[in-house]
Amino acid sequence: MANYLAMGKEELLEEKKKLEEIYAGYLARNLKLDMSRGKPCKEQLDLSIDMLTMDPADYISETGLDSRNYGCLEGMPEARRLFAEIMGVRPEEVMVGGNSSLNLMFDVISMGCRNGFPESSQPWGRGCKFICPAPGYDRHFRVTEYFGFELLTVKMLETGPDMDAVEELVKDPAVKGIWCVPTYSNPDGYCYSDETVRRLAAMEPAAKDFKIFWDDAYVVHFFGDEPDRVLNILNECRRCGNENRPVMFCSTSKITFPGAGVSSLAASSEMLEYILHNMFPMTISFDKMNQMRHVRYLKNLDGVLAHMEKHKRVIKPKFSVVLHELDDQLLPCGDIAHWTRPRGGYFISLYVMPGCAKRTVDLCKDAGVVLTGAGAAYPYGVDPEDSNIRIAPTFPPVDELKIAAELLCVAARLSTVEKLLAQ
Amino acid sequence: MANYLAMGKEELLEEKKKLEEIYAGYLARNLKLDMSRGKPCKEQLDLSIDMLTMDPADYISETGLDSRNYGCLEGMPEARRLFAEIMGVRPEEVMVGGNSSLNLMFDVISMGCRNGFPESSQPWGRGCKFICPAPGYDRHFRVTEYFGFELLTVKMLETGPDMDAVEELVKDPAVKGIWCVPTYSNPDGYCYSDETVRRLAAMEPAAKDFKIFWDDAYVVHFFGDEPDRVLNILNECRRCGNENRPVMFCSTSKITFPGAGVSSLAASSEMLEYILHNMFPMTISFDKMNQMRHVRYLKNLDGVLAHMEKHKRVIKPKFSVVLHELDDQLLPCGDIAHWTRPRGGYFISLYVMPGCAKRTVDLCKDAGVVLTGAGAAYPYGVDPEDSNIRIAPTFPPVDELKIAAELLCVAARLSTVEKLLAQ
Repeated sequence: MANYLAMGKEELLEEKKKLEEIYAGYLARNLKLDMSRGKPCKEQLDLSIDMLTMDPADYISETGLDSRNYGCLEGMPEARRLFAEIMGVRPEEVMVGGNSSLNLMFDVISMGCRNGFPESSQPWGRGCKFICPAPGYDRHFRVTEYFGFELLTVKMLETGPDMDAVEELVKDPAVKGIWCVPTYSNPDGYCYSDETVRRLAAMEPAAKDFKIFWDDAYVVHFFGDEPDRVLNILNECRRCGNENRPVMFCSTSKITFPGAGVSSLAASSEMLEYILHNMFPMTISFDKMNQMRHVRYLKNLDGVLAHMEKHKRVIKPKFSVVLHELDDQLLPCGDIAHWTRPRGGYFISLYVMPGCAKRTVDLCKDAGVVLTGAGAAYPYGVDPEDSNIRIAPTFPPVDELKIAAELLCVAARLSTVEKLLAQ
Repeated sequence: MANYLAMGKEELLEEKKKLEEIYAGYLARNLKLDMSRGKPCKEQLDLSIDMLTMDPADYISETGLDSRNYGCLEGMPEARRLFAEIMGVRPEEVMVGGNSSLNLMFDVISMGCRNGFPESSQPWGRGCKFICPAPGYDRHFRVTEYFGFELLTVKMLETGPDMDAVEELVKDPAVKGIWCVPTYSNPDGYCYSDETVRRLAAMEPAAKDFKIFWDDAYVVHFFGDEPDRVLNILNECRRCGNENRPVMFCSTSKITFPGAGVSSLAASSEMLEYILHNMFPMTISFDKMNQMRHVRYLKNLDGVLAHMEKHKRVIKPKFSVVLHELDDQLLPCGDIAHWTRPRGGYFISLYVMPGCAKRTVDLCKDAGVVLTGAGAAYPYGVDPEDSNIRIAPTFPPVDELKIAAELLCVAARLSTVEKLLAQ
């Protein structure tokens, strides 16, 4: 291997032939591997299995409230306290929901479109726009797309969204909000800098009812040596007199069970009251027994962090395998690709030569390794550079992951050579 | 006691004085009883407690799908089969949701308002109307009120909604749907007759996208000797070529745990596909572990019915206590009130003399017994006759229930006497 960018046509053709032979070897193996979503693996799911055996008496709250029965839309008091600790807010600023924080986000966007928010002069509606730092979480963008927002792409930097661009966009009163994954962002694994958080809190959007959807999905999901600490958006906004601006979300989906965790939302007292008022017609109450299960098992933030250490032991080697393979196969090829080295979260972001992402993903797919679709991390599913590939290393076993990563590198190299030859 | 309607002023004044003295006795007892909602009692909640201890291996589906992880929006295959049996439809016509069927109804109404349905020429929106058989379930009416529908009251008869009125109303293309609780209706406990179901299936509304919201909340909740069987609305609609018309709902809220049961929805294949397509942006999946808990514990329809026998033993005596008190105290007073004698469900509907319901409920409340607010069972919370009182006997222990029922009768008699004296 040598620097592809320094190769002449003959050398490239030779390299292409070599890679095609290697690739044919993978084709012959009939692989069937899935790295498409950020799914915890079986070993991780088994970590929380003790949560399920619980003394029936533990379903009764310290207040005497029976979690088995109807009522208590805002969530069990113990659960509000637990999530308040995780999010760094006060229990009275927290509501605890069902198994899906995405569903809570959907519901809050939906109530904005139906009724607006306390500061709104009218409901969010036709012609409204939403800022989508990209690459980002496809299911966020999908929610706002479903509700008819125009999605505005802003570049995701190592410090968070490009704030110069954000501050420019919010001069438009039709721009109603921004999606944020502040800690170990999906898919880059970046953490918002203090300056980014302060500028988000202090900026003066033309829309008085501008909202920050602050999805702290990976707030306790570090596997580096030290946790990264992102500034608290609610506190920062309050300091600037904008306390109704942020709505914070988190969940235990990647702490306990992805399909049966507990979600939570935090906001200023006024916003929380407004949100609960709008949720009242929707349901009698969320699943409070599952809330109690989580509280009894995880206990408090210290308990959560201790539990995350166990995940770290499972996950960290998987990230290492992928990074090792990328370093090994792609670094020698010259400046044809770069990738992130996250200290937490669920993804590695690989940037191949522009125009090569879709071809790389297709080559992998044809050989039986399913990656997230190229472009998925961009609004409307289109990466304007066709460069980004989201790698989700957690689900496959280490040995399979190694094969998948090898194939991914071969595919990235082959598509790069093809591209260079076509130029 | 004698027939109030035959009493002269003097007799009424004397009766009033006597009742006020009895009422003062209740006031002095500082009661604190809640009969406001259809909540199962602790003894009922304890019936399902064994569901919570389950072999971890049981969370894996027969198909190998791990219920703990993401995915499978339509619900676990075993759970779809269980609810298909309960609702009398095919598994592929069923999706299984989270803990709240009200939430599923809210979501389906919401998608109608956002996108309409397969037959819609445009989304449901401003100026749309919804038929509300009354008395009915307040939380149904609340959903359509929240979404801005004009609520049209139709009288609830012993055979179901007054179909002459319904057939007249659906000539208006703005009328988009009807709320139905076909089995042991809330609050009357009536079951729809075959003719009612057939007319609902066969009628030709002006709105091509007219939907029947068929909330079979009490489908297996009989405590008479024989279950009442209401005709299957999906089959009847299909027979008439209107298979996209009904959306059926049920849940285990009053089979296992009100706060942590499993909800389900059934519809024609085309409708179900449309609904799932619209739910995709909302969530990754519902809580499938809770679905598996329910399937493993209840097994099948026979298992459900056996389990309901245990509820019956707890509930039936409670209904008897209330009915006995009503018979005992109110029958001798002449035609001043009438009430239903349900064979299932969660409520008794008491009709006092027009203009006396609110006063009766207030008298009870002042003496420490909280009933459902008078008028709650009518659109916008207003009973035009001020006559209906919903009695929810399941939650209080039998001894407390007896006191509450005694007080309720005293209050009903006192308010009737006051009314007669004011005429």
